[in-house]
Amino acid sequence: MTRTDLERLFEEVRAGRAPAAEAAAQVERALRAAPFEDLGFARLDTHRQVRQGFPEVILGTGKTPAHIAAIAERIVAHGHALLVTRAAPEAVDAVRQKVPGVQYHEAARAITLRQGDIAPGVGTVLVVCAGTSDLPVAEEAAVTAELMGNTVDRLNDVGVAGLHRLLAEQSRLHAARVIIVVAGMEGALPSVVAGLVRAPVIAVPTSVGYGASFGGIAALLGMLNSCANGVSVVNIDNGFGAACVASAITHG
Amino acid sequence: MTRTDLERLFEEVRAGRAPAAEAAAQVERALRAAPFEDLGFARLDTHRQVRQGFPEVILGTGKTPAHIAAIAERIVAHGHALLVTRAAPEAVDAVRQKVPGVQYHEAARAITLRQGDIAPGVGTVLVVCAGTSDLPVAEEAAVTAELMGNTVDRLNDVGVAGLHRLLAEQSRLHAARVIIVVAGMEGALPSVVAGLVRAPVIAVPTSVGYGASFGGIAALLGMLNSCANGVSVVNIDNGFGAACVASAITHG
Amino acid sequence: MTRTDLERLFEEVRAGRAPAAEAAAQVERALRAAPFEDLGFARLDTHRQVRQGFPEVILGTGKTPAHIAAIAERIVAHGHALLVTRAAPEAVDAVRQKVPGVQYHEAARAITLRQGDIAPGVGTVLVVCAGTSDLPVAEEAAVTAELMGNTVDRLNDVGVAGLHRLLAEQSRLHAARVIIVVAGMEGALPSVVAGLVRAPVIAVPTSVGYGASFGGIAALLGMLNSCANGVSVVNIDNGFGAACVASAITHG
Amino acid sequence: MTRTDLERLFEEVRAGRAPAAEAAAQVERALRAAPFEDLGFARLDTHRQVRQGFPEVILGTGKTPAHIAAIAERIVAHGHALLVTRAAPEAVDAVRQKVPGVQYHEAARAITLRQGDIAPGVGTVLVVCAGTSDLPVAEEAAVTAELMGNTVDRLNDVGVAGLHRLLAEQSRLHAARVIIVVAGMEGALPSVVAGLVRAPVIAVPTSVGYGASFGGIAALLGMLNSCANGVSVVNIDNGFGAACVASAITHG
Amino acid sequence: MTRTDLERLFEEVRAGRAPAAEAAAQVERALRAAPFEDLGFARLDTHRQVRQGFPEVILGTGKTPAHIAAIAERIVAHGHALLVTRAAPEAVDAVRQKVPGVQYHEAARAITLRQGDIAPGVGTVLVVCAGTSDLPVAEEAAVTAELMGNTVDRLNDVGVAGLHRLLAEQSRLHAARVIIVVAGMEGALPSVVAGLVRAPVIAVPTSVGYGASFGGIAALLGMLNSCANGVSVVNIDNGFGAACVASAITHG
Amino acid sequence: MTRTDLERLFEEVRAGRAPAAEAAAQVERALRAAPFEDLGFARLDTHRQVRQGFPEVILGTGKTPAHIAAIAERIVAHGHALLVTRAAPEAVDAVRQKVPGVQYHEAARAITLRQGDIAPGVGTVLVVCAGTSDLPVAEEAAVTAELMGNTVDRLNDVGVAGLHRLLAEQSRLHAARVIIVVAGMEGALPSVVAGLVRAPVIAVPTSVGYGASFGGIAALLGMLNSCANGVSVVNIDNGFGAACVASAITHG
Amino acid sequence: MTRTDLERLFEEVRAGRAPAAEAAAQVERALRAAPFEDLGFARLDTHRQVRQGFPEVILGTGKTPAHIAAIAERIVAHGHALLVTRAAPEAVDAVRQKVPGVQYHEAARAITLRQGDIAPGVGTVLVVCAGTSDLPVAEEAAVTAELMGNTVDRLNDVGVAGLHRLLAEQSRLHAARVIIVVAGMEGALPSVVAGLVRAPVIAVPTSVGYGASFGGIAALLGMLNSCANGVSVVNIDNGFGAACVASAITHG
Amino acid sequence: MTRTDLERLFEEVRAGRAPAAEAAAQVERALRAAPFEDLGFARLDTHRQVRQGFPEVILGTGKTPAHIAAIAERIVAHGHALLVTRAAPEAVDAVRQKVPGVQYHEAARAITLRQGDIAPGVGTVLVVCAGTSDLPVAEEAAVTAELMGNTVDRLNDVGVAGLHRLLAEQSRLHAARVIIVVAGMEGALPSVVAGLVRAPVIAVPTSVGYGASFGGIAALLGMLNSCANGVSVVNIDNGFGAACVASAITHG
Repeated sequence: MTRTDLERLFEEVRAGRAPAAEAAAQVERALRAAPFEDLGFARLDTHRQVRQGFPEVILGTGKTPAHIAAIAERIVAHGHALLVTRAAPEAVDAVRQKVPGVQYHEAARAITLRQGDIAPGVGTVLVVCAGTSDLPVAEEAAVTAELMGNTVDRLNDVGVAGLHRLLAEQSRLHAARVIIVVAGMEGALPSVVAGLVRAPVIAVPTSVGYGASFGGIAALLGMLNSCANGVSVVNIDNGFGAACVASAITHG
Repeated sequence: MTRTDLERLFEEVRAGRAPAAEAAAQVERALRAAPFEDLGFARLDTHRQVRQGFPEVILGTGKTPAHIAAIAERIVAHGHALLVTRAAPEAVDAVRQKVPGVQYHEAARAITLRQGDIAPGVGTVLVVCAGTSDLPVAEEAAVTAELMGNTVDRLNDVGVAGLHRLLAEQSRLHAARVIIVVAGMEGALPSVVAGLVRAPVIAVPTSVGYGASFGGIAALLGMLNSCANGVSVVNIDNGFGAACVASAITHG
Repeated sequence: MTRTDLERLFEEVRAGRAPAAEAAAQVERALRAAPFEDLGFARLDTHRQVRQGFPEVILGTGKTPAHIAAIAERIVAHGHALLVTRAAPEAVDAVRQKVPGVQYHEAARAITLRQGDIAPGVGTVLVVCAGTSDLPVAEEAAVTAELMGNTVDRLNDVGVAGLHRLLAEQSRLHAARVIIVVAGMEGALPSVVAGLVRAPVIAVPTSVGYGASFGGIAALLGMLNSCANGVSVVNIDNGFGAACVASAITHG
Repeated sequence: MTRTDLERLFEEVRAGRAPAAEAAAQVERALRAAPFEDLGFARLDTHRQVRQGFPEVILGTGKTPAHIAAIAERIVAHGHALLVTRAAPEAVDAVRQKVPGVQYHEAARAITLRQGDIAPGVGTVLVVCAGTSDLPVAEEAAVTAELMGNTVDRLNDVGVAGLHRLLAEQSRLHAARVIIVVAGMEGALPSVVAGLVRAPVIAVPTSVGYGASFGGIAALLGMLNSCANGVSVVNIDNGFGAACVASAITHG
Repeated sequence: MTRTDLERLFEEVRAGRAPAAEAAAQVERALRAAPFEDLGFARLDTHRQVRQGFPEVILGTGKTPAHIAAIAERIVAHGHALLVTRAAPEAVDAVRQKVPGVQYHEAARAITLRQGDIAPGVGTVLVVCAGTSDLPVAEEAAVTAELMGNTVDRLNDVGVAGLHRLLAEQSRLHAARVIIVVAGMEGALPSVVAGLVRAPVIAVPTSVGYGASFGGIAALLGMLNSCANGVSVVNIDNGFGAACVASAITHG
Repeated sequence: MTRTDLERLFEEVRAGRAPAAEAAAQVERALRAAPFEDLGFARLDTHRQVRQGFPEVILGTGKTPAHIAAIAERIVAHGHALLVTRAAPEAVDAVRQKVPGVQYHEAARAITLRQGDIAPGVGTVLVVCAGTSDLPVAEEAAVTAELMGNTVDRLNDVGVAGLHRLLAEQSRLHAARVIIVVAGMEGALPSVVAGLVRAPVIAVPTSVGYGASFGGIAALLGMLNSCANGVSVVNIDNGFGAACVASAITHG
Repeated sequence: MTRTDLERLFEEVRAGRAPAAEAAAQVERALRAAPFEDLGFARLDTHRQVRQGFPEVILGTGKTPAHIAAIAERIVAHGHALLVTRAAPEAVDAVRQKVPGVQYHEAARAITLRQGDIAPGVGTVLVVCAGTSDLPVAEEAAVTAELMGNTVDRLNDVGVAGLHRLLAEQSRLHAARVIIVVAGMEGALPSVVAGLVRAPVIAVPTSVGYGASFGGIAALLGMLNSCANGVSVVNIDNGFGAACVASAITHG
Repeated sequence: MTRTDLERLFEEVRAGRAPAAEAAAQVERALRAAPFEDLGFARLDTHRQVRQGFPEVILGTGKTPAHIAAIAERIVAHGHALLVTRAAPEAVDAVRQKVPGVQYHEAARAITLRQGDIAPGVGTVLVVCAGTSDLPVAEEAAVTAELMGNTVDRLNDVGVAGLHRLLAEQSRLHAARVIIVVAGMEGALPSVVAGLVRAPVIAVPTSVGYGASFGGIAALLGMLNSCANGVSVVNIDNGFGAACVASAITHG
C-alpha cells in the first residue's frame, strides 16, 4: 500500500464515497497482509519472486517426498519457475505425479521447470571445477545459474596439481563476469584463480576428500583464508548458494 | 519420615507401646528407603512423579525394544503417564504388546499413554518452527508439552528468509506464556523472536542442514550467542527437553 | 498507531477537521516511525522497556569507555534503569563522569542505576554457585536479577565433590521459583540440582578450569547433555543472560 | 608480448632490421619476464594493478614496521595507491617517515594514500554493522571500498535484537548495489538483510562475543548456513576482504 | 638371561666345559631373542603374560574374522586365556571353528576362554553404570575384570537424575577396592561417586547420547574435568581398558 | 548417627531419661547435620578427611589471594594438612601472613603444611617425566603424593626420542606400585612405559608443545588411545589429580 | 619450445624459408600448448610422467566406475603405467572391461598395470605397520612404492605395546633408505622408530581406533608433534601419498 | 659392546686372565650402559650424534634460561655442534655466559655453534617462503639445514596470489634435491610447487593469518589434503623439523 494508495483512500473518505470505519479496516488489513500461502506444514513465500527476482526454492533433503511435491505444485500453480535441489529419486517421482513437465538433472540432482518471467543476467557465469569428483556440486551451481537466467560456461578438472590445464584457459577466465570455483581436498584453486582475474570469485568447498579433509572443512578453511583478493565463500557443497550469489551479481 | 512421624514414634516408645530396638530399626529403614524399583538392568525412579510432577520418561535410542517395553510396563503399572521418545518402529510394536492402549505420534516419533494426575499448566506454550524439515523436533516438543498438561499452539515454517511470515503472527507470539523456537541451519529465529516478545524463549537447535552446519553445531552456537535477551538453549534436536523446561515454567 | 487511532483519524478527515493529504502523511510517518535514538555509532533501542519490560543493557566488552558512557547517559536521560555488564575500571570512571550516581558492583563487574518502573517478579530467584572461582559470574546473575525487580537468594560453593553441602539446603532449593546454577569444570551441578526440584533450572557454564575444560566447553557440553529434566543453558560466563531468562519467568 | 608484438618482431627480422639471435633472446626474456620487484624479504607484485585494478595491499600484522615501511615506499614509488590494513601505531610512524603524506584511519586501523588511476565503481556499497563493537571491522571495509573508488553508505548498530531499527532503513537497503553486513555473536543479521533485498550480501563475521562465540566461529558458521539466498562469506574480521569482493562487483 | 645365568655361563667357559666363541654367540642370541610369534600379518606377543600377568587380547574391530580366528588359535595353543573384545557375529563363528570351547557374552560383545594361570585380584571391582543404554560398555568391563581373576560387583542405572538410587547403595560403594563408573551424556556420575568414597574411580565415558554429546566427547570432557579427587579416565566406550587398570590395581 | 547411637537414644527415651520431643528433634538435626563450615564465599568440606583420607585442597587459580588465605587458615585451624596448588606469588604471600609455617615448592608451584594424621601409602609412587619442560607438572604430582603419605621416586627426561634412557631404568619401573607418566607433545611415553610393566600407569598430558599440540590436546588424545593396557588419564597439566589417584591406589 | 628451437625458427624466417606471420603463429601455439587430454568431465594430465616421473594416478573414491574406467583407458593408451587407489569392486569390473590385463591387489584395494619406463629407486623403502588393522593402508603404500620402481620391505604388527617386537628388527630399520610407518590409535610408533634411525620417516596415521581416536585425529596429532627428528606426516589413511614421498626420495 | 668385544672377553676368561664373575659383571654393566649424561633435570642423549648424525638439539620454549644454558654447556663440552631453537633473548644471554662463542640468528630465533664432524649433504635444500610474515619459520629451517651440513637456497614471498613470481623461478625449483615450502593462511603453495617438480616437498604450515586460520590449522589441513604428489607435512611453525627431514634426505 503506497502513499498514493493512501492519499486516494483518504480522498475517498473525505469525499464521502467511502465510510471512515471501512477505510480504517482496509488500511489495517494491508498492514497485516501476509504475502504467503499457509500449507499447514509450510508457509510458501509467494512474495519472494517480487522481492528477490526468483521464487522460493525447495531444498530436497530433510523433507518427505509428499511435502516436496505439495510445495512444488503450489509454486508452479503460482506461475513461478520450479527448482528442487538435492532431490532423491523418490522425490523426483513424487514431484512428477503432481507436476508432469519437470526436468531432472541427474548429475546436479536437481528438478527444474522453466516458466514465468526470469530476467536475463548480464555477462557470463563461469563454473570452474577442480576435479571429477566435484562435478555434482559444480553441476548444481550451473543448472541453478541457468534457470535464473544466466549464460553459463563450464571448465572442469583444472586442479592445481597440473597447473598448465588452468593456465591454458586464461581467456575464458578473463571473459567471465563472475566465477564460481568448486574444489575439495585442500581447496587451493579459488586462490589461484582469483590471483589471475578481476572478476569476483565465489568459492564452493566440497566434501570431496578423506581423512583430514573432515568432510570439507579443510577446503572451507583454505578458501576463507585465501591470500588472493576478491574471494568469498559459501557452505560446503552449496553449489546452489554460489549460483544465487552469482546471479545477484549479474542482475545488479 | 516427617518430624510428626518421628514424634509419634518416640511417643509410642515412651509409652511402652513399641520396643526401642524395633523403633530404631524402623528409623534406620526409612533412612535407607529406596523409592525406586530395581529391574536388574534398570532402576525405575518411582519417586519422580512426586518430586518433579511427571513420571520418568524413556529415551528410546540406545535401548533394546525389550528393555523399553519392560520399563514402559512398570511405569504404567504404577499408574503413571507414559512417554517414550525417539521410538523406533520395533519399539512401538514391543511396547504395544505389553501396554495395548498406547498412542503413537509418527511425526514426533513418540509413544504416549495419558493417565494419572497431571496438573494443568498456566498459559500457552507456543512451539515455533523455522522450516518444514524441523517438524519432527517441533512435534516432539508439542506432544511432550501436551502430555504434561499444557495448552500448546503451533507456528510452522516462519524462518527469517521471509520475515513477513513471522511478523504476521505477532499477536500469537505475544499471547504465549513461554515460546519454544525450533530451528536448524544458522539458528537465527530465536534471536528474532526473543527481540519481539517478553516471554522466555527456549531455543532448540536442530541437526537440519549440511556442510558447515556440522549436525546442528552452527545452530547451537548461534542460539548460545543470541544478542537478544531471554533465550536459553537445550541440546540439538532435544524437543523433549525444551518441553520439560516450558512445562516447569507453566507449572511454577 | 492502533485501530482506534486510525478510526479517530479517519473520522477527523471525514468531518473535514483534517486535510486528507496531511492525514495520509501522518499514517505514513507512523509506519516509518523509528522508536530508537541514533547516536551515529549506536542506535539506542528506546522501545525495549515497552516491548520487554527492561531497557537496553550495555555489554561492556568491545566498546570504548567513551562509547559506553555516551550510551549510558542517553539511557538514563530517558528515565530508564541502567545496567552495564563486564565493565572495566576505565569504563566505570567514564560512566561516573556522565552519570554521577551509579553504583559499581566489583565482584559482579557491573554498573547499575536503579530508576524507572520495574515490575516486581513473582517468587524467588535462587543463584547456586559450584565453587568460589565461579563467584563473578554468579554475582553478575544476582545483581542483574535484583535490578530487574526480583527477590534473589544465593547459595555458594556447593559443588558435587562434597554433595552433603548441597543436600543440607534442599529446603531453599524447593522454595525457589527458578534456579540459576553456575558451575565450571565438569559442570555437573545443574544435573544434580534439577534431579531434586520441580523449578526450571538455568545452567550457566563458566570458563573456570584448565586443560580439557577448554575455556568452559566441558561445562557447556555437560549441561547441554544433562540427563535431568528442566535444564536449559546459556552461554559460557553469561550470568546476565541467565538472569534475563529467570526474570522473564518470574514476570510471566 | 601480444601476437601483434610478435608479428612486428618477426617482420623486423625478416626485413633484416633485427638479427635473429637477438630477436630470439628478446622473446625468451619476455617469456621469463618477472613483473615484480624483488626486495629480498619480499617480492612486490607490481603487475597487480594491471591484472586486478588495484595495487598490492599490505596486511600489517606479522610484519615488522621496517618491512611495512619499505614495501609501502616502493608501492608509492610506482605511483600506486597505498593501503596498509591492521596497522599498529609503530607501523604508522615507520610508514610516515618514508611516505609523509599518508592518512591514518584510527577506527579502521588503516593507512591510506590516494593516488594513481582508480576507476569509479558503479552503484553504492552499503556497509551494515550489527553492533557498536563491530565498528572497527566495518570501518576497515568502508575505508577500503572508498579507496578502491566506491561510493559508500554506512548503517550502524541495527542488530536483530531490535529489528525495527533495521526495518526503518529498508530504502537504503534496496538502494545498494552490494551490501556488506558485519556482525559478531550469533551472526544472524546477514540472513535477515538478505531476506529483504535483491543485492548480493557479503557477510563478515567478527570476533565480537565471548564464551561459545569462540572468537567468531559462531558467527562464521551462522553466516555459512544462512537460509537466505545471495549470501557469501569472508574470513572472521576480514573487512578488507569484503570490500575487495564488493569492489569487484561494482567494477564488473 | 639373568646375572645368575651369565655367571654360570662364564664359569662353564672358565672351566673349559664350553668354548668361548659358542658362549659369546649364546649371549648375543639372548640379546636378540624375540619372545613373539610371527604370523606374517601379526606378531603375537607371547611374552605379555609373563610381563603383564595377562596374555595379549584381540580387539575385534578392524580385523577380518579370519585374522581374529588365526590369532585366537595361536593364543590358545600357547595355553593362555583368550579374550576377543567387540566381536562381530561373523568373528564369533570364525573363532568357534578354530577354538570350539569359547564362550560368547552377547551383552558385552566378548569372546572368552578361561585357561592358564590367572592370579586372583585382591578386593572387589565394582562396575557402576549410569543408564540402561550404557550396559554394553559396563558388561565389557565386568567380563574382562572377571576373566582377569577379579571379584566383580555390578550396580546399574543409578544416574544423577535420581540421586537417591545411588545414595541407597553407599555400603557397596564403600566396600569396593576400585570402582569403574560407566556413563554417557554429561558423564557426571564419576564425580558424584568419587566425592563419596576413598577408592580410586576409573571413569569410562560412553558414546550414549545425541546432539552435543558428540559421540561421547561431552562425557569424556566432563570426566577429565572432575572436581572430585581420585578420578582417572579411559577412552570412550573402553570398558576393556578400564578393567585392565582396575585389575592392575587389584594385582598390585 | 549410627544404629548404635539410635538404639541408645531410644533406650534413653524408653527409660524416661530423655523427653521424646527432644529426642525426635535430635534425630532430625542429625539428618540435617552439615559437616562443613560456611565462610560465605566458600563452604569448607570439613568432612573430607574422614570420607577420603585427605582434607580439602585449594586450587589456586581463579581465586583471589584473600580467599585462598582465608580458606587455608580454616583448614589449618581444623588441624588438617594444607595443600594449595597452582599458587601465584601473591597467594604465597597472603597465605604466609595467615599461616606462617607453610612451605613453598617453587618448581611445583605448591604451598604445603604437613600436619594431622596422614596414613602412609603401601609401595612406591614413581613419577616419570618425558622432558625438562614437563617438570612443573611432574613436581606437582610428586609433592602432592609425598604430602599424602607416599614414598616417591622420580625419573626425569626419558622421552621416546632416546629410548635407551628409559630402558636403562627398567628396574625402577618394575619396582613401583603405581607409575605417573608426565608427557607433552605426542604423549607417547605412557604407552611405552605401560608396555613394559604390570603396575597401573596414570598418564598426565601436559600443555608442553606448540602448533598442533593445541595446548596438550595431542598428548591427551594419544594417551586416551594408548594401545598398551593399564593406562588411565587425567586432565592436561593435572599433576595433582594424578597423585590423588596414585595415593588412592597405595592406600587401598 | 627451447631457445634452440626459437633460434632455428628465427633463422628460417631470416633466410626467407618461412613466412614471418606463420612463424609468429607457431610460437603463439607453443605458448598455448596444452599437454593434457580433455575428456569433458576430466582433463588427463599427460605431461605428468615427464614432469614428475610417474603418470597421473586415479583416486577411486568419489568417481563413478564409468569415469574411472574411461580415464584408465586413456592413461594406458598413452603407454603409461596405471594405478587406481581405493577401488571399489564395481570399479575393478569396469576397468577390467576397458583394460583387460590389470591386476587387483585386494588387501591394498588397488588396481595396477605395469608398463612404460619407470626408473628404479635407489635403496629400500621399508613399510612398518603398527597393527593388523592398519594393513590395508600399509599395503597401499607398499603396492604403490613397488609400482613406482622401488624395492620394498615390510614389517608388520610391531606396535609399542610390545616394544621387543620392533627392537628385534633394528637391522632392517637401519638398512632402509626411507621408512614409512603406518599406525592408528595413539600413533606413537613413528616417534619410536625415528628415535632409532637416521633415515627419513614418513608417518601415516590411520583411522584405526574408536572413541577419542576421532577417525585418526589422535594418531595424526601425535605424529605431527613427534619429539623425534626426521618425521614428516601425510593425510590419514594416505598410504599412496606416503609412497609418493618415499619414491621422490629414492629417485633423487 | 660388539660381538668382537664379547669374543675377546670370553677369551680372556678362558685364558684365566680375567675372573669369570668380574667378566659377567662387565657384560651386565654394558647391557645397562646408559649413553646419556644425567643432569638431574635432564638426561642429555650423548649417543644421538652417533645414532642420527647430529647431536641433541634444545627446544628453547618451556625451559628456564638456566636449564638451557646448562644443557648447552654440556653439549659443547662433548664436542658437538650446538643448536637452540626458539631462543628468547634471556636464553641467549644465559647461553653466552656459559658458551661465549655462540652465534645468534635473530630472524630465525636460533643460537648456533658450529663444531664437530658434520657430514655434508648431497644436493641443495631449497627453502620457499609464501609471505614476508612467514620469514621467521623459513629462516629457522634454513639455519638448521645449513648447520646440519647442507647447501641452502632461499626463495621468499612467492605466494599464489601472484603466481608469476613463482613461475619465474622454475629453474631453481627444478635444481633442488628437496624443497621446504613455508606458508600460512590457506597454505596452498606446497600443492602448487609439488605440481611443478619431482623433488620431495616438505610443507611447513605457519600460524600466520587470523580468524579462521585458527593459528595455522587452515594451512595445516590444506597441506595434509594436497592434491599434488610428493608432499609431506610437519607441525605448525616447525621450520626446525622440516630441516631435519630435508637433511635426512640429503644424507641418505
